[in-house]
Amino acid sequence: MSYDNENIFAKIIRGEFGCIKVYEDEKTIAFMDIMPQADGHTLVIAKESAETLPELSDDGAAACIQTVKKIINAVKIAMNVPAATVLQLNGSEAGQTVPHIHFHVIPGSILSAKSHAREMADQEVLKGFAEKIIAALD
Amino acid sequence: MSYDNENIFAKIIRGEFGCIKVYEDEKTIAFMDIMPQADGHTLVIAKESAETLPELSDDGAAACIQTVKKIINAVKIAMNVPAATVLQLNGSEAGQTVPHIHFHVIPGSILSAKSHAREMADQEVLKGFAEKIIAALD
Repeated sequence: MSYDNENIFAKIIRGEFGCIKVYEDEKTIAFMDIMPQADGHTLVIAKESAETLPELSDDGAAACIQTVKKIINAVKIAMNVPAATVLQLNGSEAGQTVPHIHFHVIPGSILSAKSHAREMADQEVLKGFAEKIIAALD
Repeated sequence: MSYDNENIFAKIIRGEFGCIKVYEDEKTIAFMDIMPQADGHTLVIAKESAETLPELSDDGAAACIQTVKKIINAVKIAMNVPAATVLQLNGSEAGQTVPHIHFHVIPGSILSAKSHAREMADQEVLKGFAEKIIAALD
């Protein structure tokens, strides 16, 4: 499948659309999920244009998983939870809604997490979580 | 937390306990989950001793995600499904049952997947899935 340059994460990477960012490096960005399944739910995306994990380069995949490692540690501290779940969906039939490779880092258990909400979370609340996560990353 | 050398995946890595293996390289092993949440459910583990993803080295994490990429492609072909879900649990409070870093590669959607079964799947059925996945990896 050809990559859709107009998907929302591509726009975030190009700076055409905002996000509540908690981390960025050469190859990845991490920001708050605006429809969180749990408080502190953070997304990690590759800057490389790829729809699913198998389409991402090995180098891009390595960069993502290293950022995921950092975010797991940070959300555990920031949200004061002992555990975190990583969820990564490949294909709309798996529930992938944005056609750009992304990893969900969800504080706690997926079993107690909500399904993706239909409404956006309060931006100020998300900014408060982001500040805690950024502080924990330092 | 200190790593438990007697966990079942540590025994599989040392060859003290069997598994239905579909792939192995210098740093990772992939094998059939014996309590699958969907047909073709495969686990990818690091050979490195680490309980959770943040405790795994960057190098070990990169090796795992590259094996996960291969397994996603293979299970999609082998199980004839258009999508696959990656789930990685960090901590018992997230639902992690074996204290050794592992990635679940689940054909299809987690929403339609079963919870981890309480009984082991039929070994011959799992071997049949493994043969298909091995063929798809070639």
